[in-house]
Amino acid sequence: MYRTHTCGELRIENVGQKVTLCGWVQLKRDKGGMIWIDLRDRYGITQLAIEESTAEKKVIETVDKIGREFVIQVRGVVIERYSKNDKIPTGDIEIKVEDIKILNPSEIPPFTIIDNTDGGDELRMKYRYLDIRRNPVKNALLLRHKMAQEVRKYLDAQGFIEVETPVLIKSTPEGARDFVVPSRMHPGEFYALPQSPQTFKQLLMVAGMDKYFQIVKCFRDEDLRADRQPEFTQIDCEMSFVEQDDILQTFEGMVKHLFNQILNIEIDYNFPRITYTEAMEKYGNDKPDIRFGMEINNISNFVKGKNFVVFDSAEYIGAMVVKNAAKYSRKQIDELTEFVKQPHLGAKGLVYCKYSADGTFKSTVDKFYTSEDWKIISQQIKAQPGDLILILAGDKYKTLNALSELRLKLANELGLRPKDTFAPLWVVEFPLLEYDEESRRYFAKHHPFTSPLDEDIPLLETDPSKIRAKAYDLVINGVEIGGGSIRIFNKELQSLMFKNLGFTPEEAENQFGFLMNAFKYGAPPHGGIAFGFDRLCAMFGGSDSIRDFIAFPKNNAGRDVMIESPAPISQQQLDELGIIIKNN
Amino acid sequence: MYRTHTCGELRIENVGQKVTLCGWVQLKRDKGGMIWIDLRDRYGITQLAIEESTAEKKVIETVDKIGREFVIQVRGVVIERYSKNDKIPTGDIEIKVEDIKILNPSEIPPFTIIDNTDGGDELRMKYRYLDIRRNPVKNALLLRHKMAQEVRKYLDAQGFIEVETPVLIKSTPEGARDFVVPSRMHPGEFYALPQSPQTFKQLLMVAGMDKYFQIVKCFRDEDLRADRQPEFTQIDCEMSFVEQDDILQTFEGMVKHLFNQILNIEIDYNFPRITYTEAMEKYGNDKPDIRFGMEINNISNFVKGKNFVVFDSAEYIGAMVVKNAAKYSRKQIDELTEFVKQPHLGAKGLVYCKYSADGTFKSTVDKFYTSEDWKIISQQIKAQPGDLILILAGDKYKTLNALSELRLKLANELGLRPKDTFAPLWVVEFPLLEYDEESRRYFAKHHPFTSPLDEDIPLLETDPSKIRAKAYDLVINGVEIGGGSIRIFNKELQSLMFKNLGFTPEEAENQFGFLMNAFKYGAPPHGGIAFGFDRLCAMFGGSDSIRDFIAFPKNNAGRDVMIESPAPISQQQLDELGIIIKNN
Repeated sequence: MYRTHTCGELRIENVGQKVTLCGWVQLKRDKGGMIWIDLRDRYGITQLAIEESTAEKKVIETVDKIGREFVIQVRGVVIERYSKNDKIPTGDIEIKVEDIKILNPSEIPPFTIIDNTDGGDELRMKYRYLDIRRNPVKNALLLRHKMAQEVRKYLDAQGFIEVETPVLIKSTPEGARDFVVPSRMHPGEFYALPQSPQTFKQLLMVAGMDKYFQIVKCFRDEDLRADRQPEFTQIDCEMSFVEQDDILQTFEGMVKHLFNQILNIEIDYNFPRITYTEAMEKYGNDKPDIRFGMEINNISNFVKGKNFVVFDSAEYIGAMVVKNAAKYSRKQIDELTEFVKQPHLGAKGLVYCKYSADGTFKSTVDKFYTSEDWKIISQQIKAQPGDLILILAGDKYKTLNALSELRLKLANELGLRPKDTFAPLWVVEFPLLEYDEESRRYFAKHHPFTSPLDEDIPLLETDPSKIRAKAYDLVINGVEIGGGSIRIFNKELQSLMFKNLGFTPEEAENQFGFLMNAFKYGAPPHGGIAFGFDRLCAMFGGSDSIRDFIAFPKNNAGRDVMIESPAPISQQQLDELGIIIKNN
Repeated sequence: MYRTHTCGELRIENVGQKVTLCGWVQLKRDKGGMIWIDLRDRYGITQLAIEESTAEKKVIETVDKIGREFVIQVRGVVIERYSKNDKIPTGDIEIKVEDIKILNPSEIPPFTIIDNTDGGDELRMKYRYLDIRRNPVKNALLLRHKMAQEVRKYLDAQGFIEVETPVLIKSTPEGARDFVVPSRMHPGEFYALPQSPQTFKQLLMVAGMDKYFQIVKCFRDEDLRADRQPEFTQIDCEMSFVEQDDILQTFEGMVKHLFNQILNIEIDYNFPRITYTEAMEKYGNDKPDIRFGMEINNISNFVKGKNFVVFDSAEYIGAMVVKNAAKYSRKQIDELTEFVKQPHLGAKGLVYCKYSADGTFKSTVDKFYTSEDWKIISQQIKAQPGDLILILAGDKYKTLNALSELRLKLANELGLRPKDTFAPLWVVEFPLLEYDEESRRYFAKHHPFTSPLDEDIPLLETDPSKIRAKAYDLVINGVEIGGGSIRIFNKELQSLMFKNLGFTPEEAENQFGFLMNAFKYGAPPHGGIAFGFDRLCAMFGGSDSIRDFIAFPKNNAGRDVMIESPAPISQQQLDELGIIIKNN
């Protein structure tokens, strides 16, 4: 072993001990007569002290050569510091250096290895091995490790078995694009990388494994939006002989365990559960942030029929109360108006009403609505003197979406979304199907094995769009953290589903044959859930970006700029695989 | 929840309780008046009892319909059994069934779901979800889960951090064949699947992560030998600021932890360490099974010069003592002779000498060797009256190999290799380089970053084949379970290595550029090890085959016969990827 201690463990109790430390040079300060070096490793920083008058000549000579990020080994005695540093755990001591050795020199790094670095995103990714030396990235990876350990500890204690499912599987045309792997032994044939282990976990239930989980890499060949990765990690779970409530309880327990073990936050209440419909009506969003209220109210009944043609002709009119914002300036409100008028939100304008502290109302539509009208509206939506009422009208879901975005924007500005507060909730009863106008057919919103609510099964024949599913999402702070469903395990219902999704029996057999085959041999009732692990780690780490919680991420073009991948392969490899690259 | 208890938990203490169980029908026995059903789930088997005279009519009707592997739900009362079964933990009780429900019927399975099934290998793989219902496979997967948990528990406690390295990486021409993944976003370019996270774990050391591990899928596109899988799992580890002994101690600790936790075997001694050279000389093999002795002895000095031309002209003459085997029949010895004469072993013949219980010697070469000669030889190789001496002569390494195979064969026949006895050892000081006659150059035996022994560095310039490496294997019962090395972290030595491996600086830069680049910024001394996790599980499970320790294995043609993969993909997918399949 090159060292007796790490750079993070020596304390005042160790004073007088002879120690050997190794690490990277964070900083060297020559104060004339005294040289100090901050020595860093994964565990911390320890200060080294070299007194020029007493140190050996060769020590001084070596110290002279040392620069930032050199890897060194030092031997010395732990002494109490003259001026202590209470910002670091080793701040009471320093090492009086007796011997020093350069284990490896370093060129000057392309960016500084400090918490707030001067390195840009691409540069940091190119030199990821240096970026990981920085505390924010290092701590993100340590957090991720701890989270994975705690997930496993919890699920193991609950009787779950981690089973590794294969990475080289088969391409299925449904859903997002697969990455494929040409087979050399079977020319013209391909494996595919899994978008999720969905079918395999269902097969494991048929196999009687009862409770399965896996922390597993998944792959999706999509055009990358910001903060999406072509390979990502899921906590993938499935249980047998359960109903929806069993799954929600089990995984609510897991999330509470993580809050407790990782962030020391005790959540002693049941996570609220709201339906998809309620989420849309109250928040305009199926993943609402409920750290704050500012709920949306449908005020159509109270504002229609007053000759204001915009409202009278609107499918939907929604209002929101911003507490204590009656004092907002014209400029502030203009800015909000511009916000909702952006093309992707598409509102025509923003109606507002200031409910002044003195109890009077002043709105942009005073021509149509009296103080009495506003009083009634205020009562309905619980506005009080001093509040600002914001109103949008138009197509229902477009308007709800604009209100949702407005709500989040205001909350950000008002500081209502603190990173260290967590508001988990379950959104349940998602619609089973989505109608696609273009292909004129229904698609499974979750996936084709999702079970409808028992009482909604008859709607399959009459009004499929109204069917609610035994599907659920876990949402924390407005972010979808996990989602799953109870699966169909009844053959007849499954056939009916495929019919409604526009599959011929042949197509269904072709795509899902081996799963449907398995279901012939005694499939238990089962259901599951999957969590986005990268996202979960980022949330626990207080970050909006998943990238720093992945050791070696790819950029938005799906490229690893450090190893320069993807890259051409040799002609010999192409020949062996029996494939030709098409010339453009 | 569909059940109150599992099929494995009810005991005599539960008698009188009303319970609901779910599971699969293992067996139904109609004894006239009484029907018994063995109900099975992951946790065990519970017997159900239906008395025809007292049961409700609908219960009897349902029971009539039930066949093997039906999924059922039963409600009833726990009662004490009349005739108990002490072979299963629930054998004291049975359930007096009050209600029974078929949750899902089952077709007749293609093979019986019992420990010794009638299903052949391919059939079992095609219906893997049924095969996993069988105890041997189910228990193998449960063992694997527990092993993974214990590996993580141990390494976490030792300060190791599990870091996920990428799956979509870059193809490197050195070594085995890569699986590649065409990039749609970068037409003509490819990702590759990792054969191991070797470079990434070294980068993590440069990044200061200090102690890394990962239980990780690796991929190798090789022509599959029996019991090889194109995707397999490694326990991959790396440490900084360590020397070889630190790594051996740490991972010896891990293996002892596993023996203790999984098999309840306490290993209270240090694993023996022998050098590669010693292993070859004593066992003819770099992964010796040391559960038994029967070591090989070089007897050249004692048998040459006696006019026996076969020995006189041989490069090497090796002998082995088989205890108490002087009584072997002619037929038995003929069989051994045939064995060593097989083409892949290539011995010309087998010389033997029976050292009879009465102290006399009888050999096939009595013409050349006297009793006195045999007495001296016996002393040297510790043969005693009653023993059989077997001798092979020829090229040194070919002869050692044949002796090694003979040694293992005899041990198998003599019952010297019991599955529940474990003899771990470290083999150290592997040769650094191997000379390839065909390409007339040296190859790295381990990989090009393996460090030579310090005292052997000068040999790089004079006799590279003699250089010993800081490379080590963990061998248990003749199986290589893990291997690793201390890495080169010094730039000059690395350059010298590349030169000796016949790389031009450009080639080295091209293939290992990003790792060598990383090494410019302060690489710590580091080293690591990787264990074959599938193999380790099989060994702990007492099996020679890894296949049952993998949930969904592929067959010897690299094919998943359950999902029928690999398979053709659509023309649209090919077009998007910009590749064409070559016609043969």
